[in-house]
Parts: sequence; C-alpha cells; structure tokens
Amino acid sequence: MAQKPSIPKGTRDFSPLEMAKRNYIFDTIKSVFLLYGFQQIETPAMENLSTLMGKYGEEGDKLLFKILNSGDYLKDAPDHLLASKDYIHLITKVSEKGLRYDLTVPFARYVVQHRNDLQMPFKRYQVQPVWRADRPQRGRYREFYQCDADVVGSDSLLNEVELVSMIDEVFKRFGINIVIKLNNRKILSGIAEAIGAPEKIVDITVAIDKIDKIGLDNVNAELLEKGLPQEAIDTLRPLLTLSGTNDEKLATLKSLLANSETGMKGIEEMIFVLNSTAALSLKSQVELDVSLARGLNYYTGTILEVKALDVEMGSISGGGRYDNLTGVFGMDGLSGVGISFGADRIFDVLNTLDLYPADTTATTKVLFINFGDKEAAACLQHMAALRAAGISCELYPESAKMKKQMAYANAKGVPFVAMVGESELESRTITVKNMTTGNQSTCTITQAIEMLS
Amino acid sequence: MAQKPSIPKGTRDFSPLEMAKRNYIFDTIKSVFLLYGFQQIETPAMENLSTLMGKYGEEGDKLLFKILNSGDYLKDAPDHLLASKDYIHLITKVSEKGLRYDLTVPFARYVVQHRNDLQMPFKRYQVQPVWRADRPQRGRYREFYQCDADVVGSDSLLNEVELVSMIDEVFKRFGINIVIKLNNRKILSGIAEAIGAPEKIVDITVAIDKIDKIGLDNVNAELLEKGLPQEAIDTLRPLLTLSGTNDEKLATLKSLLANSETGMKGIEEMIFVLNSTAALSLKSQVELDVSLARGLNYYTGTILEVKALDVEMGSISGGGRYDNLTGVFGMDGLSGVGISFGADRIFDVLNTLDLYPADTTATTKVLFINFGDKEAAACLQHMAALRAAGISCELYPESAKMKKQMAYANAKGVPFVAMVGESELESRTITVKNMTTGNQSTCTITQAIEMLS
Repeated sequence: MAQKPSIPKGTRDFSPLEMAKRNYIFDTIKSVFLLYGFQQIETPAMENLSTLMGKYGEEGDKLLFKILNSGDYLKDAPDHLLASKDYIHLITKVSEKGLRYDLTVPFARYVVQHRNDLQMPFKRYQVQPVWRADRPQRGRYREFYQCDADVVGSDSLLNEVELVSMIDEVFKRFGINIVIKLNNRKILSGIAEAIGAPEKIVDITVAIDKIDKIGLDNVNAELLEKGLPQEAIDTLRPLLTLSGTNDEKLATLKSLLANSETGMKGIEEMIFVLNSTAALSLKSQVELDVSLARGLNYYTGTILEVKALDVEMGSISGGGRYDNLTGVFGMDGLSGVGISFGADRIFDVLNTLDLYPADTTATTKVLFINFGDKEAAACLQHMAALRAAGISCELYPESAKMKKQMAYANAKGVPFVAMVGESELESRTITVKNMTTGNQSTCTITQAIEMLS
Repeated sequence: MAQKPSIPKGTRDFSPLEMAKRNYIFDTIKSVFLLYGFQQIETPAMENLSTLMGKYGEEGDKLLFKILNSGDYLKDAPDHLLASKDYIHLITKVSEKGLRYDLTVPFARYVVQHRNDLQMPFKRYQVQPVWRADRPQRGRYREFYQCDADVVGSDSLLNEVELVSMIDEVFKRFGINIVIKLNNRKILSGIAEAIGAPEKIVDITVAIDKIDKIGLDNVNAELLEKGLPQEAIDTLRPLLTLSGTNDEKLATLKSLLANSETGMKGIEEMIFVLNSTAALSLKSQVELDVSLARGLNYYTGTILEVKALDVEMGSISGGGRYDNLTGVFGMDGLSGVGISFGADRIFDVLNTLDLYPADTTATTKVLFINFGDKEAAACLQHMAALRAAGISCELYPESAKMKKQMAYANAKGVPFVAMVGESELESRTITVKNMTTGNQSTCTITQAIEMLS
C-alpha cells in the first residue's frame, strides 16, 4: 500500500543543514548558561493533565495536545456524555495526559516534586520542545523548542543583573545587535495607582505602546473610549510621551509615582538593575521601556524583552520575575526570575543577517573515492588514521563513476577528496584534492593528516 | 488549590547530575557519528497515525500514544460506534496523530518525503525520544531516547564494515569492553532451507540461543515438540553445538549450507565483513553468532548486536540491513543498514562500572561568596573577567551566612570558592579557596584566572 507521506500541520522536519544551524544556536546558548552556573534538567514530554489544565487560561486549556488513554479509553465515559457528544466534559474521561505547553509549568512541578533534593537557590536551564494546538501560520508552529533559564529561591536583584549580563553574552556570541528592554511590574502598578485606575493597566500599556504609530491624540481618544477619566489621561500625559535617557525617564517616573509605595519600590529595583548592568560595560543597549507589559497576571517584578536592532522581528528573548511560581502546586513563597530564548526567531535573524560562522554547517571533511575492493581496503586503513587525529571522513561505498562520487562530495559540501588508486597503493601515498581551489597533491598519510588537521 | 504533583507512569525527570551523564553519552555518540560522516536530522514528535499504524504489528498499534484531535474531536464519530463504546473503531475518528514509536519509520517517511532533496547514499543520524504505551517496569520506560545511524541508498557491505568500526570507536571512548555479535539473515534462511523447515527458523534460533542454559538434549526435545522432524534435528546438530573461532564456525556453516544459494551468499557477506573489520585491528571482539535473530521480518542481510563484557545486561546496541525500508511509503528498492545505541542501558553500564570521566558532572567552577552590596558589585566585575576566560562562575545572590553559602557550593559540587571581602576590595585582590584541599590563597584577578584556567 503506497501512501503519500506527510507530517502533521504546523510541525517540521529538520534537514542536516538546518540541524547544523540549530545546533549552533542551542550549543551557544547552553554554553553561556553553563558559564553562568545554570544546570540542565529535562522533564517528560507528557505531563498529567491535572498538572497542565488551568495554568494557561481557558484558551490555553484548548490548545493543549491531549493523549488518548491507552486501551479502552471509553470505559470511564458516562453514556449520557457520549450520547450528547459532550466532547468538553468527556476530555478528562478519555485523556489523563497532555503534551507540555511550555517549560515553566513542568519546571514548577519539578521544583515542588523534588523540593527535598534541591539546593536553593536553584539555577536550572531547560532546552526542550513544547507543543501547542495553535492555528499554524507563518512563523508559528505546533512544535517548537524553548530555551529557558531560571533562578528560583532567591529574590535578590543580583539574579536580574546576571540574567541581563547573560543575555548580552548570548547575543554578543551570535553577533546580533540588540536592545534589552526593561520594565517592572511594580512601576506599572504604581502608574495604575497614580491615575486611580488599577483595572485599566492593560489598556494603558497598550496605549503607550501605540503612541509612535497612531499619535498622542488618537491614544487619548482610545483611552477615553475605554472609560478612563479625562483627569487620569492628563496625569498620564508625561508617561505617554516619555522619552530620552533612562535617567530622564526615571526622573519623570519618580515625580509621577512619588505617592505610590509600590511604584517607588519598582523604581528603586529598576535603578539597581540599570546601575549594576551599566557598570558591566555590556555590548547591548539596556533601555527602560514603560510600555513593556508581558504576562501581567504572572510577573511580579522585573520584566524584560530583547529586540534585534538590525532586522524587523518580534522579541527574540524575554522573561521576568514571578513571586509564586509553585504556589499552584502547594509550595508557597518561592520567588524566581527567568528568561526564555526564542530559538526559531534567532534562527531567522541569523539567516537574514547571514551571521552563521563559516564552520557551522561543516560536514565530513574528507571523502575517500572508491576505486575498487583493494583500494577501498587501503582507504579504510587511512580513514582509521585520520579519525584517530579527529578528522571526519568517509568512503564512498560503491566504486561508482568518478563523476558520481564527486557529485556526492559537492552535494554534501565535503571540502577535501582523497584518492588512493593503483599508483598510490604502490607508493603508499594518498592524493588529496582541495574541492574549493581544485589544487591536489600526493603525499604520505602522515603529511595528509598534518595538512588536514 | 494545592495538588500533589507527579509525572505519568513510566516517564522520568532528569536531574542536573543525570543530565550531565546523559549529555556525556549523547555527545560521545554524536561526535563519533560525525567522525564517520553521518549528518543529523530531526523529525516531529507527532506523526500522522496513517504513517505509524500497521508498521509495528498489531501489538505495536496498541502501544502507540494517540493524540486526541483538537476542538470537537467527536464531530466525526458515528453515533452507533459511540453507543456501543467501540473504542477500537473510534480511534481513527477521534485521533489522527500519534507520538513516534521509533526513529526508523519516521526516517523512512522522511526519506520518501524529501527524496528529491537527498543525495544518495544518505547517511543520517537521529537522537530523539520515542514513546511507547508499554507496561512500565524496571528498565522499561514509556519515554526514552533512541540514537540511530543509518545509511540508505547503498547495498555495499563497506557500510556494514564502517558501522562495526563506528560501534568499536563509540565503546572504546566509553571504556566499555564489548563483543560485537554478527549474523546474517541469509545464513538463517540457508539453515531453514538446509533442514527443509523454513517456517521453523524462529524456533531454531531460540533453541540455539538456549543451548548453553538447558543443554543439547533439552533443546532437541523442544524442537521435536515444536514439530521439527528428527532428520532435521540431526542435520542441525553441528549448528547447535557450533563453537570455536569465527573461521571454525564458518567452515561448519559452509558444509551445512553448501546446497543453499542464499546461505552461501550470507556466508560470503559474513566473510567480507569479518575480514574487513579484522584488518582494522578493532579493540572489540567481533564474533559470528548464528543464534542472533533480531527482527526477522524486517532485516534482510547482516544483523548485529552489542553486549557489554563486564556487566550483566541485555544488548546495548543493535541493528542490521533492511532491503525495503521505504516500500511501504511507495518508494521501492532502497537498501539500507543501520544501528541504534541504547542510551538508557549504556547509562546503566557506565554507572555500574563507574566509567564516567571525572569532569562529566563538572558544574560551576567558582562560587563567589556574597559579603554585601559593595563586595558583590566587585564580584560581578571579576566574574566578567573569569567568564571572558571561559571559566564558569556565579555569585551567591544573597549576603547570607558564610556557612549557608559554603553549603551551597558543596551541594552543587563547586570546586573553588572566591572571596572578595573588605581587605580584598582595598588591595584589589581575590582570595580563592580550593574546596577539595582546603588551601586558599590571595592573589590578583589575573593570577586567579591563570590558576583556574
């Protein structure tokens, strides 16, 4: 039975070339994580649905991939639910496991489950795929990797400073120029307090974010429409037009939030993080951005986002501080701060700006041409010597036409071809051809190894 | 709501220590794969059920984890199937995706789907988790990694030789002494032919395998019971008691299979592989084992299995040649040969024999003790210098009691602790303590970097 094979919508195969580039990205991020003292963990792809449900909002519950129970999955399904095709209430009857939706909830579950084995503060990193039943579209996939680093069990702002420094190091290694945008949830709360409309904080941050695009008047009109009193809008004005250096912005904020204890605490935290990172002479710009408002119901302190400067693209990294990650699993009072790197977007940025190092996609270094059984046997010996010297090589497995073997080398991007024919067999030599320059020379295997190393 | 968090049966969390060991295993295997010219691909965790179903036998179909369709998964479910709770026929109505069960079928699907982009022979490796709804038990998990390398598009036996050489290199690097057991499906067919009972081949290989345990008489009795004629059993006798060197075994086989064309072809192939690998002076034993009979309905030529010599354990690697991997997806005539490394068992062997290199579980190299804000600020500067030199380090984020900070260093296995107190601040020095020896010395940051590099 011949089937036309394909893969599920929103999922991807990765070719050798793509894998080489992805490995470069993951390896770079991981090596920086290690340099900063983070340790890797992995959690299962499947979590109990009870762990996942209710953690991502109603929409998130729908986007979880659920695993059908093994065996007779209908044995606990009540007849009346089946009869009415009540697929919503049947879900927990036919499925008790789901695929992880992010790395944060599994991490929280991990911390609580293994609390007795963990030394706090616990600095963990995790690089694994997650799955979401989102409508697939350009740049949005149903399976994608997240690269997260978090510190839990410490509310010191030094953790924020280290994370900013770590982000700087990662993108310095990639050669991507970035701005690291910082805000603080407490500053946002302070603003809401200051204008007497705490419930309008989301509308306000959206408005601040739009000011460049639609202008002050339109933003004001929108805020009025959303029910913000004119007085509050007037109070907001200096904030909506906030610009200049971080210090200038802080000065405006200080006067605006002078009466908000929470707001002033946020400013104090911001000042500490900005001053401490400024002292480190980072390559990246670090910018206070009061329009930044990610995950409002989740983060409680610093929030941050990274944008690439030389290419149009959404944020390529982001994170923040949360004060009660593990509370939902019965372990209260554990503060943490973390960041997540967007591997797919970093992949696109590196492609767009052509920033991959030349050896990223390096493959086999030497292809041995196959001239027949006797020659092939000699090649196997030579290859053992090359490999002992760390040089990757392979033998074309058939004594096919030279043209075909060369085409293979070219297609695979092999930079050197080694030939051991009759005369080389006799003189115990090897002819090495540089596929880029076309130069070739005949030498001993020792000389060849030296040349290729 | 406090939940007691746990993970699904048969799945595992991996701690930093376990991850470090697993990374050592995967990195070692991957680096050898690359040395031999294999290139990495990845395929999605989810495949269409049409790709997976029917590929692993009836039992395999049951062990596939199926994903519940998103949204109203009951909309295509016929009322009468729901009414009769016919969960078997409902499966394809409520689920169209499943988790991959191995890496082989997704690879076959990949090759067919991307046939126009692939240069043959295609040497791919793949290291990804697979999922099976097996009954969990000691050493058997519902999520585990496979590490596969395959060459497709070439029927040359040089591929077999390279794979044997690659296995040798992998286990040499691990320091695990192994025997590589080889057999050939054609030899097994020849044996079945020679005794006139082709359908009894499985019983025969099982019997050969048991001879050491239960003795010749009991094996013969079992074979009689299974319906093998006495004449066939007599013919089998030299095979059942086959021992000695590979050459001695081959001599016996040659006389037994003299009239079987297939059998003699298998012997010829075996001789080529044995001679070619013998010429490579491998560290591992390579042994012809006619009792080896893995995946009979799948492999068509060479089959191989790896056993650790110094520890009781099932096979830790295995593979073979198949002649029609992609036929089920409509692409005939593609021969391939591959091997799979069992990461979980290798993990256990390395643990049992305590073979992990000392630096496998190396973590942060230096912990900076936190004596307060001013000192911490200086530490951040020093850490930037250390990290620029590639030395991993971290700062304890709170100025906690010395004892607590030291306990953190100990628990994490940090080998050096750096102290910058008031006197070090003044003299622009740093005190470094070796946690193993207890020695400590005060020096400049440049000297510290030199010492720690």
